[in-house]
Amino acid sequence: MSVLLALHDWPIEIWRERFAALLPDMDIVALGEPFDRRSVHYAVAWGHPPRSLSGLPNLAAILSPGAGVDHLFRDPDLPAVPVFRIIDTDLTTRMSEYVVLHCLLHLRGLLRDQANQRLHRWETDYLQPAAGDVRVGLLGFGVLGQDAARKLAAVGFDVAGWSYGGKEVEGFRVYAGAAQLPAFLARTDILVSLLPLTDETRGILNRKLLSGLARDGRLGRPALINAGRGGLQNEADILELLGDGTLGAASLDVFETEPLPVDSPLWDHPSVVITPHNAAVSNPDAIARRIADQIIAIEAGEVPEGLVDRSRGY
Amino acid sequence: MSVLLALHDWPIEIWRERFAALLPDMDIVALGEPFDRRSVHYAVAWGHPPRSLSGLPNLAAILSPGAGVDHLFRDPDLPAVPVFRIIDTDLTTRMSEYVVLHCLLHLRGLLRDQANQRLHRWETDYLQPAAGDVRVGLLGFGVLGQDAARKLAAVGFDVAGWSYGGKEVEGFRVYAGAAQLPAFLARTDILVSLLPLTDETRGILNRKLLSGLARDGRLGRPALINAGRGGLQNEADILELLGDGTLGAASLDVFETEPLPVDSPLWDHPSVVITPHNAAVSNPDAIARRIADQIIAIEAGEVPEGLVDRSRGY
Ligand SMILES: NC(=O)c1ccc[n+]([C@@H]2O[C@H](COP(=O)([O-])OP(=O)(O)OC[C@H]3O[C@@H](n4cnc5c(N)ncnc54)[C@H](OP(=O)(O)O)[C@@H]3O)[C@@H](O)[C@H]2O)c1
Ligand SMILES: NC(=O)c1ccc[n+]([C@@H]2O[C@H](COP(=O)([O-])OP(=O)(O)OC[C@H]3O[C@@H](n4cnc5c(N)ncnc54)[C@H](OP(=O)(O)O)[C@@H]3O)[C@@H](O)[C@H]2O)c1
Repeated sequence: MSVLLALHDWPIEIWRERFAALLPDMDIVALGEPFDRRSVHYAVAWGHPPRSLSGLPNLAAILSPGAGVDHLFRDPDLPAVPVFRIIDTDLTTRMSEYVVLHCLLHLRGLLRDQANQRLHRWETDYLQPAAGDVRVGLLGFGVLGQDAARKLAAVGFDVAGWSYGGKEVEGFRVYAGAAQLPAFLARTDILVSLLPLTDETRGILNRKLLSGLARDGRLGRPALINAGRGGLQNEADILELLGDGTLGAASLDVFETEPLPVDSPLWDHPSVVITPHNAAVSNPDAIARRIADQIIAIEAGEVPEGLVDRSRGY
Repeated sequence: MSVLLALHDWPIEIWRERFAALLPDMDIVALGEPFDRRSVHYAVAWGHPPRSLSGLPNLAAILSPGAGVDHLFRDPDLPAVPVFRIIDTDLTTRMSEYVVLHCLLHLRGLLRDQANQRLHRWETDYLQPAAGDVRVGLLGFGVLGQDAARKLAAVGFDVAGWSYGGKEVEGFRVYAGAAQLPAFLARTDILVSLLPLTDETRGILNRKLLSGLARDGRLGRPALINAGRGGLQNEADILELLGDGTLGAASLDVFETEPLPVDSPLWDHPSVVITPHNAAVSNPDAIARRIADQIIAIEAGEVPEGLVDRSRGY
């Protein structure tokens, strides 16, 4: 029985060693080398070439080493087996670090203070809002959104969420679906996107949605933080909205094209903070451990956490 | 009975109105205008001219509208009455926002990401430590230090404190006094100074102390955050330590001289973040409310919170 590594652009030998150590009873094979296709029961895949997972007659599951699975569904012939995404505390914690950092950065006007620093300018004639005066809205209230929400609330922000179906989460109002989106946006000063990229969410961070953000907030103008996927955002719209004052600032970790092209006007925008898709770069050992645990659970006849709803795409 | 406002450089009329509304039975008078010295039972003072509070025969208490009282003890003839500092949730919360923001900033290498942004450079070949891998040490574990500690722990940091006498605080090891300072520093990757400025703490953030910080930390080199008072820090030492690699970075909200002189080399240092003593600029209404509550409590024969130990200077 073997595990196929279909990890585009990842250092395969290091991952082979990790899985070999964690799954001593399995062979670890990799795309691009000869292997017995019938022996493959599991595929660990990240951005695999379309169709490269086809013709594996005993494939039992596909496992994504990231929380997002949009990279799998780019394959129109993805085998019809259960797909699992990773749920890992280390990854979740790092995403929350990013979210809390960037919400506080915009709350506290750090970009203004840094601009003043460059000018050797000591400017104090403003009263900053406190976290409790500022409403953060988590667009996507899943594993990552909920952890970030708890930590944002711990530092004092007024937090709510938006999800597909809505849900009961102690301590937070969760708005549901398209019907409640306007109300959610109207109470949001800092919008944090932690949505998966699906057919329904592609391009959702556009002029229409962002124009619905609160205009009466204590920050003056709303801020956008996108740590979901670049395909969620319309960068031309975001630049225009920053220009016309609909948006005050943005922190972007993900982009329509990655790496962000050197000639993108986002780089030099004074109100944009760019990070290179590193919001939640997780510990590789923790990731390998989680996937191995999922495989061991499936072998034991259990359904591990992280099962993806293929009809919904996340 | 009157309350004397001795608020150097504050907009007196606005503060007079606030106190008049909160303490309708008292007269609100201000330094620099004629008033009956015998009528003054309370003085609300911030950086008052030395001796200007002398000769007030019925003075019952001096109240500081800030958490720090070093500005009062600059007066060698400060009347021998009880001194109270403010304890205010709004102020405390804002300080914790600042502390969490700057700890996360250094954890996540935001200055590196921002430098890369200026170069249009997409750099991803580093693995960042997680908050749980990084040890924050709060130098000063009083009202502000403890609140910041809880919020830092909530986002995942490994947190400890240092105080004069040590103390039992659930969830945190608190190192005590000079004897335990070396052990505290040796386990600290990010040092957050929230000490009061006293005869004992003046200049404490110097080469000797900072050289004791952890050299085996996951950040590579330790970072310093000072939001206490500028008089705690030796800026020449800090610049040298940043230069020789003993320190990796610093966030400074307070300075030996404020405003920070335009020719200070701190302004242009690429690893220093400067904020203009705004870490915990609090809501004036909340401050006036707290002081009025303290006065009302004293009038009722109670001892309100915030009593300063004059022998210790904080
Ligand atoms: N930048 C990075 O480094 C990085 C790292 C990891 C992950 N990510 C991204 O973060 C995303 C979220 O991760 P997660 O673990 O929180 O995912 P998750 O647990 O699957 O949660 C997804 C959330 O989005 C909501 N949602 C999905 N489609 C929706 C729609 N059409 N309308 C409204 N709400 C919708 C879901 O609603 P329901 O709860 O109602 O189902 C759920 O609340 C991942 O998909 C990935 O793209 C980025
Ligand atoms: N940057 C800003 O905007 C801003 C705003 C507000 C306040 N501050 C500063 O923050 C300071 C701290 O405020 P706070 O409310 O937390 O004060 P606090 O409650 O009085 O706490 C002071 C802490 O420092 C410790 N300490 C004092 N002297 C010491 C010494 N010689 N050695 C070791 N530890 C010592 C105390 O130890 P024990 O607990 O053992 O007594 C206590 O833990 C204020 O004094 C003020 O200067 C700055």
